[in-house]
Amino acid sequence: MVGGGLGAYIGGIHRYAARLDNQFELVAGAFDVDAARGHAFAADNFIEADRSYDSFQSMVEGERNRPDRIDAVAICTPNHTHFPIAKAFIEAGIEVICEKPMTTTIEDAIALHDLAKETGRFVGVTYTYSGYPMIHEARAMVSRGDLGKIRVVQVEYPLEWMATGIELQGNQQAAWRTDPKKNGRGGSIGDIGTHAYHLAGFVTGLKAEAIAADLATFVEGRALDDNAHVMIRYEGGARGLLWSSQVAIGQSNGLRLRVFGEKGSLAWHQEAPNELVFTELFGAPKVIKRGRDDLSLETRARTRTPPGHPEGYIEAFSNLYQGFAESIRAKADGREPNASGANVPTSYDGLKGVAFVDAVVDSHEQGGGWLKPKFA
Amino acid sequence: MVGGGLGAYIGGIHRYAARLDNQFELVAGAFDVDAARGHAFAADNFIEADRSYDSFQSMVEGERNRPDRIDAVAICTPNHTHFPIAKAFIEAGIEVICEKPMTTTIEDAIALHDLAKETGRFVGVTYTYSGYPMIHEARAMVSRGDLGKIRVVQVEYPLEWMATGIELQGNQQAAWRTDPKKNGRGGSIGDIGTHAYHLAGFVTGLKAEAIAADLATFVEGRALDDNAHVMIRYEGGARGLLWSSQVAIGQSNGLRLRVFGEKGSLAWHQEAPNELVFTELFGAPKVIKRGRDDLSLETRARTRTPPGHPEGYIEAFSNLYQGFAESIRAKADGREPNASGANVPTSYDGLKGVAFVDAVVDSHEQGGGWLKPKFA
Amino acid sequence: MVGGGLGAYIGGIHRYAARLDNQFELVAGAFDVDAARGHAFAADNFIEADRSYDSFQSMVEGERNRPDRIDAVAICTPNHTHFPIAKAFIEAGIEVICEKPMTTTIEDAIALHDLAKETGRFVGVTYTYSGYPMIHEARAMVSRGDLGKIRVVQVEYPLEWMATGIELQGNQQAAWRTDPKKNGRGGSIGDIGTHAYHLAGFVTGLKAEAIAADLATFVEGRALDDNAHVMIRYEGGARGLLWSSQVAIGQSNGLRLRVFGEKGSLAWHQEAPNELVFTELFGAPKVIKRGRDDLSLETRARTRTPPGHPEGYIEAFSNLYQGFAESIRAKADGREPNASGANVPTSYDGLKGVAFVDAVVDSHEQGGGWLKPKFA
Amino acid sequence: MVGGGLGAYIGGIHRYAARLDNQFELVAGAFDVDAARGHAFAADNFIEADRSYDSFQSMVEGERNRPDRIDAVAICTPNHTHFPIAKAFIEAGIEVICEKPMTTTIEDAIALHDLAKETGRFVGVTYTYSGYPMIHEARAMVSRGDLGKIRVVQVEYPLEWMATGIELQGNQQAAWRTDPKKNGRGGSIGDIGTHAYHLAGFVTGLKAEAIAADLATFVEGRALDDNAHVMIRYEGGARGLLWSSQVAIGQSNGLRLRVFGEKGSLAWHQEAPNELVFTELFGAPKVIKRGRDDLSLETRARTRTPPGHPEGYIEAFSNLYQGFAESIRAKADGREPNASGANVPTSYDGLKGVAFVDAVVDSHEQGGGWLKPKFA
Repeated sequence: MVGGGLGAYIGGIHRYAARLDNQFELVAGAFDVDAARGHAFAADNFIEADRSYDSFQSMVEGERNRPDRIDAVAICTPNHTHFPIAKAFIEAGIEVICEKPMTTTIEDAIALHDLAKETGRFVGVTYTYSGYPMIHEARAMVSRGDLGKIRVVQVEYPLEWMATGIELQGNQQAAWRTDPKKNGRGGSIGDIGTHAYHLAGFVTGLKAEAIAADLATFVEGRALDDNAHVMIRYEGGARGLLWSSQVAIGQSNGLRLRVFGEKGSLAWHQEAPNELVFTELFGAPKVIKRGRDDLSLETRARTRTPPGHPEGYIEAFSNLYQGFAESIRAKADGREPNASGANVPTSYDGLKGVAFVDAVVDSHEQGGGWLKPKFA
Repeated sequence: MVGGGLGAYIGGIHRYAARLDNQFELVAGAFDVDAARGHAFAADNFIEADRSYDSFQSMVEGERNRPDRIDAVAICTPNHTHFPIAKAFIEAGIEVICEKPMTTTIEDAIALHDLAKETGRFVGVTYTYSGYPMIHEARAMVSRGDLGKIRVVQVEYPLEWMATGIELQGNQQAAWRTDPKKNGRGGSIGDIGTHAYHLAGFVTGLKAEAIAADLATFVEGRALDDNAHVMIRYEGGARGLLWSSQVAIGQSNGLRLRVFGEKGSLAWHQEAPNELVFTELFGAPKVIKRGRDDLSLETRARTRTPPGHPEGYIEAFSNLYQGFAESIRAKADGREPNASGANVPTSYDGLKGVAFVDAVVDSHEQGGGWLKPKFA
Repeated sequence: MVGGGLGAYIGGIHRYAARLDNQFELVAGAFDVDAARGHAFAADNFIEADRSYDSFQSMVEGERNRPDRIDAVAICTPNHTHFPIAKAFIEAGIEVICEKPMTTTIEDAIALHDLAKETGRFVGVTYTYSGYPMIHEARAMVSRGDLGKIRVVQVEYPLEWMATGIELQGNQQAAWRTDPKKNGRGGSIGDIGTHAYHLAGFVTGLKAEAIAADLATFVEGRALDDNAHVMIRYEGGARGLLWSSQVAIGQSNGLRLRVFGEKGSLAWHQEAPNELVFTELFGAPKVIKRGRDDLSLETRARTRTPPGHPEGYIEAFSNLYQGFAESIRAKADGREPNASGANVPTSYDGLKGVAFVDAVVDSHEQGGGWLKPKFA
Repeated sequence: MVGGGLGAYIGGIHRYAARLDNQFELVAGAFDVDAARGHAFAADNFIEADRSYDSFQSMVEGERNRPDRIDAVAICTPNHTHFPIAKAFIEAGIEVICEKPMTTTIEDAIALHDLAKETGRFVGVTYTYSGYPMIHEARAMVSRGDLGKIRVVQVEYPLEWMATGIELQGNQQAAWRTDPKKNGRGGSIGDIGTHAYHLAGFVTGLKAEAIAADLATFVEGRALDDNAHVMIRYEGGARGLLWSSQVAIGQSNGLRLRVFGEKGSLAWHQEAPNELVFTELFGAPKVIKRGRDDLSLETRARTRTPPGHPEGYIEAFSNLYQGFAESIRAKADGREPNASGANVPTSYDGLKGVAFVDAVVDSHEQGGGWLKPKFA
């Protein structure tokens, strides 16, 4: 693991996720830009001293030639460092699990994706919410035509925690997220809008043809957008609306997706992730619960408990790790991944995410007109 | 009443609404373009035969010189007839209660609004949802600063019933709503988007500075939009997103408003109208229930039952009628309306609604750029 | 109307209910034990002075021989007066609409029911909640076997408003409800438990075979129970659990019914009355909405608005009034009532309700053992 | 681990729970009564062959004298075997984590509790639902007086999965649960009613003074109750109502607790476990979310993710394991457990649970009268 040490949030989640299914063991890391603090953290986490590194560069060097070298590295650092770190590990022949957004520039995203293709290294990108089992069910339902041709996609990702200028009051998590050098060009749209966009595409299989956007910055002194409105035109005629916000008081983690087709609709809310509401044309809404035996193979492969025994965010994250493990194994074995490894987000998803943010910021800066994302 | 006879939907609602509070008595009408059917309907509704008219023109003539002539007329006809009917009654000195949209063209809307101002006739427009008591509470809360300066407005009005081409299969209600000559330039945006837009403005007091829109028609052969996405910039910097749809399977009458300010947020859903969820910055969401003694005067003036005894759509409509009655009386008495008559939608609201639809259609036709509505 | 004047709560609801469907006109009343206050109230409500009476006795005398005498009287007084008032009007040949509980003693209940049968007078009892359309749908579903044989009934009616000793602080509504002479032997069980019991029986058609009860009084100085727990054994083997409470903080009007059968289950909550959740064995819960075309005839006869346009408490009450009107007309015409008059609560329902309260209080006083209600 | 092998449900949950927080490592087991199947399972789970045992007896023998012997054993077998297994491990000086109910007879429960006290061995009992963070918050709120003196407790635990006679169709999980020899005297009341009873006592701190019960068996041929209704009188005057059911169609895992006091009320539902609804007297219900910084120390010690990132059943179970680990360590260190180990369920909770089931069955068999549980 690179990053994710003391005070980090997402690093701990990666560790829970890796541990739950017993598919990965954490054996090495460069946990902190402050090397001493990183070593202390490593010791607390039962990492052998000689595999706690001062920097990602020394980690690459230390691991690349070990006989028991790591199979994969998890990159849990601020956005602007994803690219050099991922590149270094890939070049050392190590598989990569990278936080989103994959990079902060479209050029880096292209380069990383190309590098992954050339080297054959696996690059998984943690579009966390695509790990939820009922999201896989939604995808399966759309894919097999339960909703008919898709017409309208409504997706939103509102958050409250940055509703005030906490980055000016010492909050480190907020500080780098509002710094264009570290976060990239998009504020809310880069941090969370990209999750929403990925989720909508993941479930519907639709590709954006054009977007038109309006960004706003509500907290005084903030350097990036903290609210984004995006209209989307998908190939084939479907229309989408995407809202991301970091100033939405009352919204803890309000990612919500609704998909409307010619024959039915689906609704899912991240804060009640074990349910999917499905309504057929003029029918009564049905509450489909995770854990049922009649759900898709991909859904059941991501399910640990029966209906009514809620699974949550950590399990969703674990599903990504399980999927990454299966993808890496399948690659090694020269076979297709099984259901647990199907459809995991990889470097092309990462590239599409960066291209989306780029198009959104461009559209806004050009006065709101329609633009085509470079990759979709 | 003009229109609203056999087979009509909204006419019956107007009659319930008028009756509930005992402020109006239905005594005359031209209920149907088919005069015989209209007379039969009148007889069934205890209307004296000499006050059941063949047409709105004959009703104006018949009523204008009676000593017991009607105080007000309710216009429940398809959109394109609102203007001539309203104009005729106003010119006869009769107050008007008119369905929305007030007219189908901006020119007519301006003319009607000007006529109302010149003649001093009352023109109430049935923006139904502004009759709900908790909407008045929301308005009071925003107005007294409970939410701080407003940043973001999310409003949507999705419906399912026109998800297929029912207008081609003999559904009269759908037929005129999809006919540009009868409904006006906007399809979903004119029929229901205008409700959503009014509600957002009613609660927040914000005026739109610019809008950018994307319309779509999903049902084959339909002549007007059945899905609309609109980005809104309000004066003072707030941003809005509006979605209206007539093809949203599973959405019975899904009008929903969320308002986010610097200090708090509000959420309201028309299908659970007795509650308002209010969240203060970093606070626990509170479910505020209709019927409490500590709500605003305007809210309590629109309340008939205690908390937990649900009021609904008919009561909301009745609140409009009660407000229209109070407005008409207050005008006659030369005084300000009391709380029950405060803030009722009138011809200027009607005009703004038509201007909004006009701007939306223009924006879409011009490729989605920002436009300023002519009235806001 | 007898009672229901200034300061009364339920009288106003009766008037809304009578008015909404235009089936009754309020023309006479003895609105208050304080005759002057009653006359003032009558005048405010457009009652002719000669039909505003000093007392129910003078009203019986005044009305009985008028050619335009009232068809029916609504009795909205405290419980202990229901019997003498109802008796007097019945004996004068006038139909009766009576608040629940019908009487405060089982003897009076028997006498009144017998009198109704003998005289052929209609006695409707306002078990309000059986007026909700989705309750009729629930009944229809049980009746046609959608749930299979019923096994378990869970019904509860918790309220908050008497959680403190407000009867000692001048609240008139609470004062008579906590006075055994006026309210009868049961406190919460008589005031609201009887609603819950009626609803469970109404929907399931089950008759109680035995009950075992535990009453409690939590507010100091209160003379009647304010919380009741009742276990029920129904004929045929089904089991029930009933909870009524007047001290349940947070519960505005929390009547809730759940029915479980061999093939399916139903859930309904009074505060969201437009929906019924139906689940078939191992199926996905379905949200059935009021207003659909495929609901039962009895449901549709009690429906005014389409799905998504909420109806509420006043409409439910109106459905009772509509049903009473139809029952009275059908009786006069010597025919069966149509769907709108089917299954309205009458004196036998009133009698069963009083017998239930009696059995509950007896069971509690005898230490909680099983007792059979005298009528079920 | 004893039991929990192939086809078992709860064993897998124990393993997830142990792994998530990295406090336990699974190193030995007797996973199956079919030894060969058990060994195969062990091998699949990376257990060294010499620590995969044929039976719990051989496991006790094999482990007791190893220098690296297990610290604790998790007992995941059918109920009737808990006692001999726990006894054997305790006598070998090994700490015990035992599924509920702790034993199938009150005598065994007393004996086991006494043995734990005498030997000083830790016996944790997996009353899973007391591991949920918001349950700890509820307990903290009651304990510090936020609700005032408790008046009413409503607790229910309905399930659907045994609504038909699946035990007769080869379902092993259902088979032992409906076998009095394996499950004990109580059916639904022993399997899940005991969870509900524990949860109510855990949150409120109340002790039952008397209970009165009504059991029913709805599935033909089933030997134990599958539905139980229990009225509870707590010391100090509070009243409770408990419902457990294995035939409640539509209820996946419907454990629900509501507590009403003189000053406020709380509601919690296991299927939405990240929220607690708290209402103060005549106040607006507040939705308190897991993850907030202002929750109790005990709650925060059981929290891994911020608000809006749902935790679920596995995390609740992990909290028990974390609490057991901390309890065992604190005992070894001769100190009090910290917040993460506070209030974990131990043998006395197990004993109270068995005593409750015993009293319920006795009350029912004696015709429903009030009985005092032997331990509370």
